[in-house]
Amino acid sequence: QLSETFPTLDCSQCILTPRTVEVGHHPRIRLHTYSELTGLQGEAGAFTATIRRRAAYVRWDLCTGCGLCQSKCPSRVPAEFEGLLGERRAIYTLSPQAVPNKPVIDREHCRYFALGRCRVCERLCPVGAIDYEQQDQVVEEPVGAVIVATGYQLLPLARLPEYGGGAVPDVIDGLQFERLLSASGPTAGMVRRPSDGRVPKRVVFIQCAGSRDPERGQPYCSKFCCMYTAKHALLYRHRVRDGQAIVFYIDIRAAGKGYEEFVQRAMDEERVLYLRGKVSKVFRDGDQVMVWGTDTLSGRNVEVAADLVVLAPAALPDPSQRDLARVLGLTIGEDGFMEERDPQLAPVDTPRPGVFVAGAAAGPKDIPETVAQASAAAARVLSLFSRWEREVQVQVQADGCR
Amino acid sequence: QLSETFPTLDCSQCILTPRTVEVGHHPRIRLHTYSELTGLQGEAGAFTATIRRRAAYVRWDLCTGCGLCQSKCPSRVPAEFEGLLGERRAIYTLSPQAVPNKPVIDREHCRYFALGRCRVCERLCPVGAIDYEQQDQVVEEPVGAVIVATGYQLLPLARLPEYGGGAVPDVIDGLQFERLLSASGPTAGMVRRPSDGRVPKRVVFIQCAGSRDPERGQPYCSKFCCMYTAKHALLYRHRVRDGQAIVFYIDIRAAGKGYEEFVQRAMDEERVLYLRGKVSKVFRDGDQVMVWGTDTLSGRNVEVAADLVVLAPAALPDPSQRDLARVLGLTIGEDGFMEERDPQLAPVDTPRPGVFVAGAAAGPKDIPETVAQASAAAARVLSLFSRWEREVQVQVQADGCR
Repeated sequence: QLSETFPTLDCSQCILTPRTVEVGHHPRIRLHTYSELTGLQGEAGAFTATIRRRAAYVRWDLCTGCGLCQSKCPSRVPAEFEGLLGERRAIYTLSPQAVPNKPVIDREHCRYFALGRCRVCERLCPVGAIDYEQQDQVVEEPVGAVIVATGYQLLPLARLPEYGGGAVPDVIDGLQFERLLSASGPTAGMVRRPSDGRVPKRVVFIQCAGSRDPERGQPYCSKFCCMYTAKHALLYRHRVRDGQAIVFYIDIRAAGKGYEEFVQRAMDEERVLYLRGKVSKVFRDGDQVMVWGTDTLSGRNVEVAADLVVLAPAALPDPSQRDLARVLGLTIGEDGFMEERDPQLAPVDTPRPGVFVAGAAAGPKDIPETVAQASAAAARVLSLFSRWEREVQVQVQADGCR
Repeated sequence: QLSETFPTLDCSQCILTPRTVEVGHHPRIRLHTYSELTGLQGEAGAFTATIRRRAAYVRWDLCTGCGLCQSKCPSRVPAEFEGLLGERRAIYTLSPQAVPNKPVIDREHCRYFALGRCRVCERLCPVGAIDYEQQDQVVEEPVGAVIVATGYQLLPLARLPEYGGGAVPDVIDGLQFERLLSASGPTAGMVRRPSDGRVPKRVVFIQCAGSRDPERGQPYCSKFCCMYTAKHALLYRHRVRDGQAIVFYIDIRAAGKGYEEFVQRAMDEERVLYLRGKVSKVFRDGDQVMVWGTDTLSGRNVEVAADLVVLAPAALPDPSQRDLARVLGLTIGEDGFMEERDPQLAPVDTPRPGVFVAGAAAGPKDIPETVAQASAAAARVLSLFSRWEREVQVQVQADGCR
């Protein structure tokens, strides 16, 4: 979903796709997609996981992923993957590089499910994979350990009315801006504003939209917004050479290898204007978006007429997290994120032995930190298994001596 | 060396000591202390490491760690572990919880080595462990992988003359302040200033001393100073209830679980005064330390007469790092830290297979990130070994079929 990653501006699709494909093909990995964990019995080393697989209404065992159904489906829906800036059909893959690359039917928007007629996909499918009668399936898997890696979501724009969120079409969030920057996105990588498709000549970026805001939003810092905003401003200036980028910030939190230098580059080479201050109001004014704020360094009020406003909304835990915590017997912190056994010293352990947590599920984290945590969680599982294996071997040996 | 850790204020000694002791006793860990790696031949899975063990002038195979020599040695030296605020003897353990807890003789300060006479420790040692003739030893170890975890050091105070570093006795660095806060430190946990032992009633903390300063210092952000400064200010206020704490900062980088809330607590509950601005000059004025700076929020110059100034100097790589990089065939980045194979996607790998890096050796990192990286590096080693083991097994099998 991201275009390029800070501070190296690597293409994230090029990095991720080979890995997800490899996971999909790995002989010793069984992948349950479109599924949720609904139960976990037993103990570390010998859990039984109950997994509910949602009905896709497509038999993936037959489907070849040819894509014909998706190109002919008559029902068009705003695409979640594109931050609603692009379209998908009612039968669709969850992302362009989905693994496996096979579609599901969105029951709510499917004409057949809504009106009882259509069946275009069923008629066209060359292998007869469409199955409107498919039911959710529940499977059980013996597993030794569980790693929770449910990530984050952004605070919905509609919960940021003071910034015009949800009301002004040219106020978008950071993930939407990623899609505008992406060569495979709805604008093929051209920065165009949603309302009229014009290339915006002045873009205002607002950090901490709902973060560090105990009164109206979340008290915590969402950690990665400072850096992605710097990246957004820099990439915008690369795309629109005569464009002006203005960033409102409280503190610039560029703490990581090469991060400080990256922000300096945005300021010096790309002349991104950083204004320290909180924005008080964003509203529509003709075909522009007015931003009212205070520059706390000069102490003056600032009024900017922008063509596009990009918010960096607070990072929230995934909505599935509360249910998952109940299933796993874990606790959710005041901030809504999973609680680690010890955030300092056992950052990927949870209070339940054999259940680990990695990445933003336990709080906002950037990519390098998430990668390190993923490896760390794998190490914790390996160390658990090696102990467990030894115990089993000892057990076997003891039995043999009887 | 740290007193309590942010944001939970856990006692770091209580956390670390059981672990280092466990490592010291583990049947499958061979610990080389007081040693450096001087060569690495071979390849991943089958390296030969050459290790030079410095002469301790004490036979650790005989020494019982009774400590008699250390209490009777007549040569007193400022203790590095105490940030030179306390004393040690010429025969000493590198830290109070050293593993193994056995002493070394500091040749430079030992009277026998300097003047040819004394031998007090030799005379007193109940087991005859003192050996003035001991030589450096070189040993070779077969190892499968190497993890570089050389940490960081602070920019020396003497390189911060504009802040009075090295010239004004009541200008100290963050690690020295840790020792003043520590119950086992030179002041038994009372905050007393070095010059006259008085309890300081107004303490100024200066962040980014040499960090984020491409002209005079390091261009990068040292990442953990914002949080330890908030902790210092808060703990100072706990210790000195009528004391005033003032922090000069550029940005408050409190990005981590519970970090933002911790800084808010320092500001709100402990009334720590945060001034956004750069300090231009620090100098001695009678028995006080004058701090001149600018409050960039009000645009006014600020002049504070402080009793004690605590700098947060830039974090530098360990001085051993350049030699180590040469030995390991690794590259050092422009910032002086080890270069990872890919700072985003392979943050604990290095370009050399079988050699990994964890923690601040590759750039400043806080405790949770370092713990996660340590586990991640362990996972990378395990995954390497499991592959290697399989290959060896395959090899053995193939040999057997001949």
